[in-house]
Amino acid sequence: MIEQASILFRSRKISPERAVALAREVEAFNVEYCAVLDAGLVEQWPDFFTEDGIYRITARENAELNMPVGLVYAHGRNMMIDRAVAISRTQMFAPRYNLHMVSNTRVTDETQDGSILAQANFVLLQTLVEGPSTIHMAGTFYDRLVRKEGGLLLQERQVIYDTTIIANDLVYPL
Amino acid sequence: MIEQASILFRSRKISPERAVALAREVEAFNVEYCAVLDAGLVEQWPDFFTEDGIYRITARENAELNMPVGLVYAHGRNMMIDRAVAISRTQMFAPRYNLHMVSNTRVTDETQDGSILAQANFVLLQTLVEGPSTIHMAGTFYDRLVRKEGGLLLQERQVIYDTTIIANDLVYPL
Amino acid sequence: MIEQASILFRSRKISPERAVALAREVEAFNVEYCAVLDAGLVEQWPDFFTEDGIYRITARENAELNMPVGLVYAHGRNMMIDRAVAISRTQMFAPRYNLHMVSNTRVTDETQDGSILAQANFVLLQTLVEGPSTIHMAGTFYDRLVRKEGGLLLQERQVIYDTTIIANDLVYPL
Repeated sequence: MIEQASILFRSRKISPERAVALAREVEAFNVEYCAVLDAGLVEQWPDFFTEDGIYRITARENAELNMPVGLVYAHGRNMMIDRAVAISRTQMFAPRYNLHMVSNTRVTDETQDGSILAQANFVLLQTLVEGPSTIHMAGTFYDRLVRKEGGLLLQERQVIYDTTIIANDLVYPL
Repeated sequence: MIEQASILFRSRKISPERAVALAREVEAFNVEYCAVLDAGLVEQWPDFFTEDGIYRITARENAELNMPVGLVYAHGRNMMIDRAVAISRTQMFAPRYNLHMVSNTRVTDETQDGSILAQANFVLLQTLVEGPSTIHMAGTFYDRLVRKEGGLLLQERQVIYDTTIIANDLVYPL
Repeated sequence: MIEQASILFRSRKISPERAVALAREVEAFNVEYCAVLDAGLVEQWPDFFTEDGIYRITARENAELNMPVGLVYAHGRNMMIDRAVAISRTQMFAPRYNLHMVSNTRVTDETQDGSILAQANFVLLQTLVEGPSTIHMAGTFYDRLVRKEGGLLLQERQVIYDTTIIANDLVYPL
């Protein structure tokens, strides 16, 4: 756990004005992304990535040790589609509602070819039948986005979660 | 509960640029709305609605079944004023602090006459005397806003909450 | 606790358009501020304040009674640096991850010399080893920001927390 600085911290390399303008775009992207997931439209989830996009979920503890071995790893839309199909068909986990709260969207860099380095904090709230809404997972998205097909797409999303105890049934994308 | 797609999902019908611009306006509106409620100024709450505005609170479970029968229903400012007066006078519920966290503001459509279809996720945190801050309710606002009196007003706010167990004392607006 | 209006409420004195534009700037400022704290870079924390900046943390219960006696009070960067050094060296508290969620950013006024009155709601989530992510503290920042050194700096940040039970080990800035 952090007692000293996190290796995950990225300094902002662009002007505040540019960072604000890009953060608005990334924020809008994340809002669409989460709306689709919260509505259970998991089969649309791969569409937010490039054809060869990377998606992984890693515990902060591992990420801080520079061991990005993850809970989930998918490389390319095809792997994501497989995953999405599996999730939409499985009945292994109890029905629940998902609700994403995303805030603290931050753009730290922009490359010459237009790709964007961004991050955002998230809380995934879950509600099971006859239960309260609880914090299922909290953490940070570390993203690389590119401009393609007339909008932003994820070249890479690394979900780093702080939560150290995760229910065994986690399969739903974040 | 959702295993398949939510009937509540709305596709975005406007350009990303327009959606971002309008979302900023709606966000600012919600910030004022919540600041008033969190400060306990419930008698100002009806002012955020049009004269014939509609306000309702519905469980997601019912909304998904297309049964928008609600926990609360008010049609028109007068009904809201009655409600606000009742709340401000009642001592039936234990004193508490309210704190709204609103995120994921999303504008999905804009009609020719300038009304806006928007949504946003919210968490209402409550703190009772000698207690921690807990998640009282989490869900989504589904709104129709219109431009009137030099700003935005709610023509309709449908609060859909995920939380399936609600304390009996809920009377405060969201 | 509030049964009547909070004395903390401030009406907005500027146009909605100006409020939105300034809120974007303040939001970006808070995102940087929180990213530094969440990464454990506490020694950089005083840099977000002016040389003679004020920082205090007060329970809402006391603030509502107009008794801004606080859990924490620091006047000037030097006091903050002392505090930051003490925190970064202490091992008195169990290791944990911090995650700030900031939303509902609201600018209520702007003075002729360019200082900004702003507020924002926050939730500080903490995760201890082998534990879930829990709400450690929730409340509101009440800020006065000034333009200096090519950006915004805090002239004063008053953190008012709703949470009435705070773990004894609270020393980390918010």
